[in-house]
Amino acid sequence: MAKKKHKRPSKIGLAPGSLIFTGERKVDEISIKLIRYNKEEIIEEPFNEIEKVIELAQDFQGISWINIEGLHEVGVIEKIGEKLGLHKLTLEDVLSVGQRPKIDEHDNYIYCVLKMFTVGGDHSGVESEQLSFILQGNTLITFQEKEGDVFEYVRIRLREGKGNIRGRKTDYLLYALIDAVVDHYYLIIENLGEQLEEVEITLFENPDKEILEKIHYLRREMLHLRRSVYPLREVISRLEKIEEPKVESGTKVFIRDLYDHTIQVIETIEVLRDMSSGMTDLYMSSVSNKMNNVMKILTIIATIFIPLTFIAGIYGMNFEYMPELTWRWGYFGILAIMLIIIVGMLAYFRKNKWI
Amino acid sequence: MAKKKHKRPSKIGLAPGSLIFTGERKVDEISIKLIRYNKEEIIEEPFNEIEKVIELAQDFQGISWINIEGLHEVGVIEKIGEKLGLHKLTLEDVLSVGQRPKIDEHDNYIYCVLKMFTVGGDHSGVESEQLSFILQGNTLITFQEKEGDVFEYVRIRLREGKGNIRGRKTDYLLYALIDAVVDHYYLIIENLGEQLEEVEITLFENPDKEILEKIHYLRREMLHLRRSVYPLREVISRLEKIEEPKVESGTKVFIRDLYDHTIQVIETIEVLRDMSSGMTDLYMSSVSNKMNNVMKILTIIATIFIPLTFIAGIYGMNFEYMPELTWRWGYFGILAIMLIIIVGMLAYFRKNKWI
Amino acid sequence: MAKKKHKRPSKIGLAPGSLIFTGERKVDEISIKLIRYNKEEIIEEPFNEIEKVIELAQDFQGISWINIEGLHEVGVIEKIGEKLGLHKLTLEDVLSVGQRPKIDEHDNYIYCVLKMFTVGGDHSGVESEQLSFILQGNTLITFQEKEGDVFEYVRIRLREGKGNIRGRKTDYLLYALIDAVVDHYYLIIENLGEQLEEVEITLFENPDKEILEKIHYLRREMLHLRRSVYPLREVISRLEKIEEPKVESGTKVFIRDLYDHTIQVIETIEVLRDMSSGMTDLYMSSVSNKMNNVMKILTIIATIFIPLTFIAGIYGMNFEYMPELTWRWGYFGILAIMLIIIVGMLAYFRKNKWI
Amino acid sequence: MAKKKHKRPSKIGLAPGSLIFTGERKVDEISIKLIRYNKEEIIEEPFNEIEKVIELAQDFQGISWINIEGLHEVGVIEKIGEKLGLHKLTLEDVLSVGQRPKIDEHDNYIYCVLKMFTVGGDHSGVESEQLSFILQGNTLITFQEKEGDVFEYVRIRLREGKGNIRGRKTDYLLYALIDAVVDHYYLIIENLGEQLEEVEITLFENPDKEILEKIHYLRREMLHLRRSVYPLREVISRLEKIEEPKVESGTKVFIRDLYDHTIQVIETIEVLRDMSSGMTDLYMSSVSNKMNNVMKILTIIATIFIPLTFIAGIYGMNFEYMPELTWRWGYFGILAIMLIIIVGMLAYFRKNKWI
Amino acid sequence: MAKKKHKRPSKIGLAPGSLIFTGERKVDEISIKLIRYNKEEIIEEPFNEIEKVIELAQDFQGISWINIEGLHEVGVIEKIGEKLGLHKLTLEDVLSVGQRPKIDEHDNYIYCVLKMFTVGGDHSGVESEQLSFILQGNTLITFQEKEGDVFEYVRIRLREGKGNIRGRKTDYLLYALIDAVVDHYYLIIENLGEQLEEVEITLFENPDKEILEKIHYLRREMLHLRRSVYPLREVISRLEKIEEPKVESGTKVFIRDLYDHTIQVIETIEVLRDMSSGMTDLYMSSVSNKMNNVMKILTIIATIFIPLTFIAGIYGMNFEYMPELTWRWGYFGILAIMLIIIVGMLAYFRKNKWI
Repeated sequence: MAKKKHKRPSKIGLAPGSLIFTGERKVDEISIKLIRYNKEEIIEEPFNEIEKVIELAQDFQGISWINIEGLHEVGVIEKIGEKLGLHKLTLEDVLSVGQRPKIDEHDNYIYCVLKMFTVGGDHSGVESEQLSFILQGNTLITFQEKEGDVFEYVRIRLREGKGNIRGRKTDYLLYALIDAVVDHYYLIIENLGEQLEEVEITLFENPDKEILEKIHYLRREMLHLRRSVYPLREVISRLEKIEEPKVESGTKVFIRDLYDHTIQVIETIEVLRDMSSGMTDLYMSSVSNKMNNVMKILTIIATIFIPLTFIAGIYGMNFEYMPELTWRWGYFGILAIMLIIIVGMLAYFRKNKWI
Repeated sequence: MAKKKHKRPSKIGLAPGSLIFTGERKVDEISIKLIRYNKEEIIEEPFNEIEKVIELAQDFQGISWINIEGLHEVGVIEKIGEKLGLHKLTLEDVLSVGQRPKIDEHDNYIYCVLKMFTVGGDHSGVESEQLSFILQGNTLITFQEKEGDVFEYVRIRLREGKGNIRGRKTDYLLYALIDAVVDHYYLIIENLGEQLEEVEITLFENPDKEILEKIHYLRREMLHLRRSVYPLREVISRLEKIEEPKVESGTKVFIRDLYDHTIQVIETIEVLRDMSSGMTDLYMSSVSNKMNNVMKILTIIATIFIPLTFIAGIYGMNFEYMPELTWRWGYFGILAIMLIIIVGMLAYFRKNKWI
Repeated sequence: MAKKKHKRPSKIGLAPGSLIFTGERKVDEISIKLIRYNKEEIIEEPFNEIEKVIELAQDFQGISWINIEGLHEVGVIEKIGEKLGLHKLTLEDVLSVGQRPKIDEHDNYIYCVLKMFTVGGDHSGVESEQLSFILQGNTLITFQEKEGDVFEYVRIRLREGKGNIRGRKTDYLLYALIDAVVDHYYLIIENLGEQLEEVEITLFENPDKEILEKIHYLRREMLHLRRSVYPLREVISRLEKIEEPKVESGTKVFIRDLYDHTIQVIETIEVLRDMSSGMTDLYMSSVSNKMNNVMKILTIIATIFIPLTFIAGIYGMNFEYMPELTWRWGYFGILAIMLIIIVGMLAYFRKNKWI
Repeated sequence: MAKKKHKRPSKIGLAPGSLIFTGERKVDEISIKLIRYNKEEIIEEPFNEIEKVIELAQDFQGISWINIEGLHEVGVIEKIGEKLGLHKLTLEDVLSVGQRPKIDEHDNYIYCVLKMFTVGGDHSGVESEQLSFILQGNTLITFQEKEGDVFEYVRIRLREGKGNIRGRKTDYLLYALIDAVVDHYYLIIENLGEQLEEVEITLFENPDKEILEKIHYLRREMLHLRRSVYPLREVISRLEKIEEPKVESGTKVFIRDLYDHTIQVIETIEVLRDMSSGMTDLYMSSVSNKMNNVMKILTIIATIFIPLTFIAGIYGMNFEYMPELTWRWGYFGILAIMLIIIVGMLAYFRKNKWI
Repeated sequence: MAKKKHKRPSKIGLAPGSLIFTGERKVDEISIKLIRYNKEEIIEEPFNEIEKVIELAQDFQGISWINIEGLHEVGVIEKIGEKLGLHKLTLEDVLSVGQRPKIDEHDNYIYCVLKMFTVGGDHSGVESEQLSFILQGNTLITFQEKEGDVFEYVRIRLREGKGNIRGRKTDYLLYALIDAVVDHYYLIIENLGEQLEEVEITLFENPDKEILEKIHYLRREMLHLRRSVYPLREVISRLEKIEEPKVESGTKVFIRDLYDHTIQVIETIEVLRDMSSGMTDLYMSSVSNKMNNVMKILTIIATIFIPLTFIAGIYGMNFEYMPELTWRWGYFGILAIMLIIIVGMLAYFRKNKWI
C-alpha cells in the first residue's frame, strides 16, 4: 500500500506536463468503451482507436460516455488531449496515480480525479485505484487503472432508462458516477466497522497480541481511506459551485445530497477512529489486568509456601541438641502449626479479595 | 447500534431518489394521525388513507399536524410526495434511516430530519429513531420509525390550549416539537452523567475490569449522541435564518433559545467526554497501584524467608565436620540470629513505608 | 455538582416561557434591596413589595439598582416581567438555574446571565450560583440564587462615591458588577493554582493514591470553571458591541479591559489544565519507578540466596557415598564458595547500578 | 513563578483605573533616564523629577526616549498620566504586572505591553518582567519592573548613530526595542532546546527519575514562554495596521519582518513541546524496558535453581527405604542430571534471546 | 540539527538589515554561475566578479539565471543589493540561514526563501540548506549555502530546450526550480515512509529498545520536515496571487499544480506522523506482552516447584517420631503425590491458556 503512494518521485527531472504513467501496469491491454445515449436510444460499443471514438462521440446527438481501462499507453492519452484541447498538466495528472482528489475547471472542460475503492474478490483486502473524469460538452471520459469498477449499476440504469438518467446531461452522469463511488465508500466503512466490532468482542473475551496488530491494521486502512475522502468534500463542494452550462442547476440538488453523504462518510470514519483508539487503551489495560492476575497467583503460592518451607528447613537442621525433635508429638504439632499458617494466609487473601 | 448506522449500502445501484425504506420494520402497520387546531377548536383523528388526510389538512382553516408512525409502506410516502409536490430526494431521505440531521429549504416546503432519543422502557439502553419534518403552508407532517415519541406534552398543550401554542403558525409547532426532542437529549445526558458518576465512585472504591467496559460503553453512547447533536446546531441555526412567511420573526426568539439549549447539550457532552477519559487514566493507575501492592507483599515475604531458609539449609548439610552442630546452644543461637534478621528486615521495610 | 447541572429536564413538557424555578431553594425568603443614587445622594432600602420598588426606581432621577436574592417565588419574577414588559423566555431563563452565560439584547432591555463563583466560608470548596442582570433605562435588576455575593466592594464604592461610579449610567454599573465577578474568577484560579503546586511538590516527594484523586478533583473543578468562563468571552464581546444609548461609548474602553481580563482567565485555566495533565504522567511514571525498585530488591535477594540454598540443599542430601561430606575442610570450603558467590553477585549488581 | 501570575486579586474591590502597583518591589528607587536624539546629536541624562523630563522631551526637536525602572512609586506614573493625558486604565495596566501582552491605540497615544525575558546572572533560571511602552508624538516612554534590560545594543546603536536609527521616528524606536525583546526570546528558546537535547542524550544512556522532573520543569518553562509569545503575534500584527502618522509606512516592512520572527519563535516552541512529549514516552518505555530486564534475570535464576533445589530436597528426605541413596553412583548421577537441567535451561533461554 | 536551528541569536545587538552570515561556512569559495538563455541559444559560464555577471544578465535579450553557492562573502551579497536596489532586510534574510519559508513582494522584485532537502551521499541522513530566490525582471538569482543542489534536471531541460521552458519567462524558471525542490520532498518522505515500514515489520517480529530510538529519530525528522513544508503552502499560494507582469497568468496553472503537490506532501507527513505514534503504542504494548510472558514462565515454575520443595522439606525434618518415614512405600508414595501435583498444576495452567 505504502509503495503505491510514493510513485511520483520517479518523475523527478521531467518537465511539468511530461506524460509518463507512474503506476503499475495492471491490465494487458487498454480497453476503450463508448456508450452513447439519449432519451430514445442507447448504443454500447467497444473500440480500439481512440480518434474514432471521439469523432463518434462528438457527432452524436446526445450524451457520450467514453470509459478507458488501463493507463499504460501514453499515446492514447496524448491523442485525447490533442483532440479535446486539454492542458498538458491535466494529461499528466491522469497518468500520475497517487493524485490527491481534486477538481479543476478549465475554460473548455472540467477535470476531476478521485479514488475508487473496491473490495477485492477472493481476499478481504481493500483495493483502491485512481479514477479521472474529463467532462467536455456532451462527452464524459473516465480513466481507470484496471478492469472492473463500481459503475455496473449506473450502466444498468442507462440501459433500462430508469430514473430519468437518460434525459439529463453529462453533468448528471458525472454526478451519478461519483455517487456510485461514494456509495462504495459506505460499503468499505461498513466492512471496517464490522471488523472493529469483532475486535471489540474479542477484546473483552480473550485479548491476545494479534488483536493489537488487527487494530493497527484497521487504523492504517482508516488513515488511507480518510486521506481519500477528506479532499472529496472540497471537490464536491466546488463541483456544486461550477456554473451553467457546465453544471445545470437541476443537478445541483443532487450534488448537495452527495455532499451530505460525503460528510456522513467522513464523520463515520472519525467515529471509527475514536472507537479504535479507545480499543488500544482497553487492550493495554486488559494486558495489565492479566499480569495482575498472574502476579497474584505467584504471590499467593510464594507467600504460603516459602514460610512453610522455612519451618521445615528449621527442623531439617542437624544440630545435636534440638529438643523439639525428640518430643513425642513434635512432628504432628509442627504439621498442625503449618496447617494453621495455611488457613490464616488463605483467610487473609480472601479478606483482600484476591481469591 | 453499529448495524443501524450502515444501512445505506443496501441502496447501492439504485437511482438517486429511488424510494426504498432502509431501516428495520419496527411496527406492524403504518399509523396516521391528524391533529387540526386553531384558536377555537382542536380535532384529533386517526386515519387510514393518506390522500384523505392531506385534503382535510389543506381545507382546514388553521394548523394541521399529520403524524405518521412507520415508514415501511413506500406507497404512502409516494402519495404524500405527489400531493404536496415534494422533491424525489426528500422522499428518499425520509425513507433512508441513518440520515445526518439536516434542513433543506425548498421553494414550497421545508424538510428537516433529526434523531429522536428515547430511554427504553424496561431496559436502561437508549433507543434512537429518525424523525423527519415536512412543513408546507399550514401543514406539518412528521415521520417516525415506530410508535411512541417525545411529543406527548406538546399534544397536551395543544389540547389544553396552554402557552398560546394554538394561536401560532406551523413554524411554532415545528419549533415546539424540536424543542421536545432537545429536552429529551438533556434527559439522556443526565442519565449518562449519573452513570459516569457511579463509575467514578466505584473507581475510587473498588475498580475492576467491568468498570473499564462500562466506561467504554458510556463513551460509545456519547460518540453516538454527539454525532446526532453536533449537526443539529447547524440545523437550528439555518432554521432561524429562513425568512418569512415560512418562519415568522416572532418565532425566531424561541428558535434562538433552542439554539442556546443545543449548544449547552454539546458542551455537556464534551465535559462528560473529558471526564470519562480522565477516568480511564484513573483506572490504569489504580491497576498499577494494586500491582504495586501485590509486588510489595511478595517481596516482603520472599526477602524475609529466603535468607532464613538458606541459613536453615546450611545447618541441614550432612558434613561430618561442622563444629556448630555440636555446640550446646548452637540451635538456640541460630534461632536467635534468625529472629534478629526478621526484626531487622521488618524495621527496614517500615522505614521505607512498605508496611 | 453534576446534580446541579442537569436541572432542566424537570421542565420537560412545559410550554416554552413557563415560569418554574428549577434550582434548590437556598434561602427562606426572597430579599429585595433597592439602591438609588446619583451624583448628590445615595439611598439604600430593603423592601417587601416588588411593585413599589419598581415604581420608586422608575420615578427616581438617577440610577436604581434592584437586587433580588432568592428565586423561588415565581410571582415576584412575574410581576417584574409585567411591569417592565419583559419577554417570557427572559423570565424563564432567570428562573432556570443551569443557564449557559449569554447576553440577549431586546428592544427595550438587555438581559445577561452568568455564573458567580464564591469560595465557601468554612470548607474550601467552590460554590457557584446563577446571576441574572436586566438593564432597562436607568434601572438595573440583579437576580441571585441566595444571600451573599461578590458585590460588597461595589456597594462601598457607591456609598463613598469613589471612582466616579455615581456619575455614570447603568451600563457602567453593569460593567462594575461583571468586573467584580471576573475578579473573583481570578481568586478561584489562584486557589486552584496553589493547590496544583502543592500537588506537584507532593508528587516529587511522596506520591500516593490520594494525589491522583486530588488531581482528578482539581481537573473537574477546572472543567466546571472553564464551562462558565468560555461563553463569558462572547458575552462581554457582544456587550461591547451594543450601541448607544444602552451602552455608552465611554464605558466601552472599560468593557474592553474586562474582555482582556476574561481572556487572561481562560488562558490561565488552559495552562493549569496542561500542567495537571503533565502531573498525571508524572504520577504514573513515579508508580512505575517505585515498582521497579521493589522488583530490584526482590531480584537481588532471590538471585543471591536461591543458588546458595541450592548448594546447601546438595549437601543436605542423604546419599551414602558423597565424598565431599567426609573431607576435613569440606564445610568451611563450601562456606567459602558461598561467600565468593555472594561477593560476586553484589559486584555484578553494583556494576549494573542496582545497588 | 506561579505566585507572580496571580497578583491581580489584591486589587479586588478597587474601582477600575485605581492606581496600585501589584508586583513585588524589585528596586529600591525608581530610576528615570532620558535619551534625546536626532540626526545630529544625542543627549543621555538621568533625572529625578518626571515633570522636568517630560517638559524637556516635549520641547526637544527630535526623538525622546524616557526609560523608567521600578514601578512602585505610583505618584510618578500619575504625573505622567496627567502630563500626557493618558486614560486611567492605561496607567492601571502599567502598574499591574501580570498583564497579557496587548496593544491599545488611543486617540493621542499608543500603549503596548509585553513580557521581557532575561537569563538570570548566576543561576540558569529565566526571569521575566513586564515592559510597557507609551508612544506619543516624538516621545517614547518605557516602563520596566527593575534594573537591567535587553536594550543595551539599541542604546549603543543610538549612540554610534549606526543603522540609520537616529534618522527615524519613535515608531522605529518602538520597533527596535520590541525587536530586541524578541531576539532574546530566541536566546531563551535556544537555551531550552539545548537543555532538551541534553535530556535526550541522558534518556538514551541512563534514564533516572531526575530526568522526568527535568522534562516536567522544561515543559513548564515552555508553557510560561508560550503564554507570553502567543499574544505577541497579534500585538505586532495590530501594530503593523496602525496608520500614519503614528506608524510610518517605511517602518512597516521592519514590523513585518519582526512578525515573521515571532511566528518562528512560536513554531520553535511548538516543535520543542512536541519533542518533549515524545521524551516522556521514551522515558516511560525505558523504565518498562529496565523492569523487563530485571524480571528476566529473576526469572532465569528462579527457573534454573528452584527445580534443582527441589531435586536436592527429594534426596534430603529421611525415608528409610530410598533405593537411590545407596547406589554407588547415585550422588554423581544426580549431579549429572542437575547439570543437564542447567544446560537445557540455558539453551532454552538463549533460544528465546533472553541471554 | 538542533544546533543549526538556533543561529539567529548571534545577531543580537545588530541593527536590522545588518549583513552577517549566520550559518557555518560550508564551501571554501563562493561559486557564481550564470546561465543565459532564450528560445534560440543558451550560454553557461562560471564567473568571479558579481558586478560583471549582473551587467551581462541585464544586457541579455532573454532570461538570465545567476546561481550563487556559498554565502560567507558578505561583500558579494552587498554588491548585488546595490546593483538591483534590494531592501536591506532582504539581504539580511539571504544571509540568515534558519529563515522560515516565506515570500516577499517588493516594488521591483520578488524575494522567496525556502529549505532544500538533499539525501546525503554516503550516509543516509537528510541534509537541509537554505535556498533564496530573487526575481527581478528577466533575471533570477538563487543563493545556496553550499555546492550541490536538486536543479540538475532543470539545467538539462534548459540545455536540451525540452518542455518549452526556454520559451517562457523568469516566473516559469522560478516555478520549475521550486517544483524541483518539492519533488525532492517526495523523495525524503518516501525514504521516511520506507524506514517506518521497516520499523513496523521489526515491531511485529522482534521489538527491542533500538526500535524506539529509531521511531523517535524518525519523528524528529518529520517534525523538522514539517516545519519546512507547512509554510511553503502559504508561500506558493501567495506566489500564485502575484499579478502580471511579475508572474504571468500562463504560469499560474503550473503554480496551482505545485500547490496541490505541496498539500499532498503535507498530508503524507501527517499520515506518517499518525502511523509513527501508533507504533509507539504498539511498542509499549509489545513490551508489556513480553513482560507478561516472562512473568508467566516464572509463575509456572515457582507455582509448581515451591509446593513440591515444601513437601520434600517436610520429610527432610529430623523428628524422631515421623511414622511415614518408616513405611515401606513412603518414598514412592510421596513421589507419586508429587507427580499428581505436577500434573494437576499443568492441567490448571493449560485450562487458563498459559501454556
